[in-house]
Amino acid sequence: MLISWLTASISYSQIASIPVGYNNPTLTKAAQSREMISALVNRPALGNFPSSHWHDSLKNGLLKVAPEGCDKIFTAQSGSEANELAFKAAFMLYRRKQRGEGVEWSDHEVSSCLNNAKPGSPELAILSFANSFHGRGFGSLSATRSKAVHKLDIPSFNWPQAPFPALKYPLDKFAAENAAEEKRCLDKVEELITTWQFPVAGLIVEPIQSEGGDNHASPAFFQGLRDITQKHNVTMIVDEVQTGFGATGKFWGHQHWNLTSPPDIVTFSKKAQTAGYYFGNPRLVPDKAYRQFNTWIGDPARVLMSKAVVEEILARDLVSQTARVGVALYSELERLATKYPQLVRNLRGKGQGTYIAFDTTDPASLVKKMKSLGVNIGTCGTQTVRLRPMLIFEEAHIPFLISALDKALGSA
Amino acid sequence: MLISWLTASISYSQIASIPVGYNNPTLTKAAQSREMISALVNRPALGNFPSSHWHDSLKNGLLKVAPEGCDKIFTAQSGSEANELAFKAAFMLYRRKQRGEGVEWSDHEVSSCLNNAKPGSPELAILSFANSFHGRGFGSLSATRSKAVHKLDIPSFNWPQAPFPALKYPLDKFAAENAAEEKRCLDKVEELITTWQFPVAGLIVEPIQSEGGDNHASPAFFQGLRDITQKHNVTMIVDEVQTGFGATGKFWGHQHWNLTSPPDIVTFSKKAQTAGYYFGNPRLVPDKAYRQFNTWIGDPARVLMSKAVVEEILARDLVSQTARVGVALYSELERLATKYPQLVRNLRGKGQGTYIAFDTTDPASLVKKMKSLGVNIGTCGTQTVRLRPMLIFEEAHIPFLISALDKALGSA
Repeated sequence: MLISWLTASISYSQIASIPVGYNNPTLTKAAQSREMISALVNRPALGNFPSSHWHDSLKNGLLKVAPEGCDKIFTAQSGSEANELAFKAAFMLYRRKQRGEGVEWSDHEVSSCLNNAKPGSPELAILSFANSFHGRGFGSLSATRSKAVHKLDIPSFNWPQAPFPALKYPLDKFAAENAAEEKRCLDKVEELITTWQFPVAGLIVEPIQSEGGDNHASPAFFQGLRDITQKHNVTMIVDEVQTGFGATGKFWGHQHWNLTSPPDIVTFSKKAQTAGYYFGNPRLVPDKAYRQFNTWIGDPARVLMSKAVVEEILARDLVSQTARVGVALYSELERLATKYPQLVRNLRGKGQGTYIAFDTTDPASLVKKMKSLGVNIGTCGTQTVRLRPMLIFEEAHIPFLISALDKALGSA
Repeated sequence: MLISWLTASISYSQIASIPVGYNNPTLTKAAQSREMISALVNRPALGNFPSSHWHDSLKNGLLKVAPEGCDKIFTAQSGSEANELAFKAAFMLYRRKQRGEGVEWSDHEVSSCLNNAKPGSPELAILSFANSFHGRGFGSLSATRSKAVHKLDIPSFNWPQAPFPALKYPLDKFAAENAAEEKRCLDKVEELITTWQFPVAGLIVEPIQSEGGDNHASPAFFQGLRDITQKHNVTMIVDEVQTGFGATGKFWGHQHWNLTSPPDIVTFSKKAQTAGYYFGNPRLVPDKAYRQFNTWIGDPARVLMSKAVVEEILARDLVSQTARVGVALYSELERLATKYPQLVRNLRGKGQGTYIAFDTTDPASLVKKMKSLGVNIGTCGTQTVRLRPMLIFEEAHIPFLISALDKALGSA
């Protein structure tokens, strides 16, 4: 009983994708609704024949939590697909601006694209960061840089990668060095955008590099990215597949940045239980029908689940709870870091809800010990243990997690 | 009432994706099952934590209808994703053979792939056919060749396309010319495979090019492709996203070919209500964990629906029905072709169930007239009207469809 309660709340959560606990009653109700049965049994091709409750599903679900400045949505079925749709929107916008508003496609463009040749199939790039993870489709995988096991033997596009800041902890001790490191990375981003062999149409970045090692950067760094992307006419895509839906103590990870203008596109999946992208600029809607399209365009059954997730998060104020619980959890972990300075290094995620991680000597063995103690946690990067509890993780769970960690670390 | 009955059975079926009619009782029962509620509420990361009923879902569903020689399955969420996963399997197999069994990755491969550079990110191609449609991801779109609207402004891989046979109708009248045309295309396929700038690791083909204009080829042509792919060590991928699940009068379109050995990979989606690929060769399972992977790896809720679809198709013998009804429908259409020789040209799909199409002068206007008569049918290619009724289309529906078509054609 104890173990199942712990597992349900502090576990790795199906690769950080279970938002509000197993067998959640609000979700169960949604799963049994008439709309759900219809969505399952009569699966629509949403781009052509949306069902009568489709608008309500979005309006009272995903659109209710749309990031500021991004009030439009395109639905998808996975984070990879969401990112690729965002890339396509960025490419179409880039060429639209280049071609000039209202200028028709040339015959040469039309015929060459069917042959995968220029000018119809242009050389355009998406810039991403070293250690990033953006998915496993041929486009999203070209932006992914975290591990060879994802990428080896798969053809990819010749797209640039910039360094992501390698911050030193504790942050207050290394403030000057970290600022210099972030400046170095920003300079490199601008250099790549201005010197790459062909135009960089989009930039994609995670608020916290998750799969790549829970790497953080400061709000100033992200503001710098926003400035550079605006200056050089590059679509800024924020990949919130893992950071979205509350775990950082804000609904969207990028809300921690206080940007002077919103990102162009925000993608989501995982805890949303469905996927897609938000955007604000109406010119990101392609200029012709059927350019951004596919048979299903998401899944209304999963969108109904996301509506229930949103309902549950808002009704129980789970984002505030995660922010609050994260503070308490972080100080307990600081205590362990003092007790085991060799085994709990670079503790990070302060003020980022329960999105907390630390480096350790042998993450795989620590995670295995934790599992034997009834707690399923995950690793990331090469030396990191990451915590990804669900949003229902609360103060009462902390002692169980900490005492298991203490035991596991003590026996290392 | 009449219109809704017709719409339910002979309509365009959500872009050919509704298999057994709206509000089907077997599907409704599945949608209300305990397993479904669990699959919806506790969405698992199937690659790591499959639920206890996952094996049963597959075994008594999708695996029950696995094509001969392809008894293994990898699940996905869309046809595009299924095709891209198949491409990745083909690329990994190609490099595995090239590298030699058990040979470890070199440091150079590992580091270069993170930079999207050779040798870790190799130049390898998938060959597809002119007018084909295989999806809209960056890999699947590189194989798609049907229309500029899908491809324009989106970067693509430098992959080859071969001509697909342009058969002349009626087939018996043009037997010699058609055989020569198929030989020309096969020769071109072999030429491309042996002379392309870099290795062709896979070939993808639809049994009937659907989006591209309902283009057919003979069993001999496909046997030729099988021979060439085997000779040159190319993974043969049959894209059954639209042809699979019975509409051609056999469960899989490629069963019409009587190949001497099964295709390497068969992909599916649409009427399956979920997606994925079948394969036989165990070496198509990547040699390391997490190479073919993502968070969800399909959706168990949709896989439960596919199980109900399979149940319904088998219990009601709907594939045989579709074969039988297709024969009757085809002769009625032959009658219309004789009556309107200018407006019903190149009638095709004989012996292919209800997967029937014809060319006409103004497909968009004909489809519009049909809609005003209560029948929603679709177009494809540039001059074609395609019929894509559900599998529950039966003899009694034929007169309504034919009389509406007669009326629409007569007023053209």
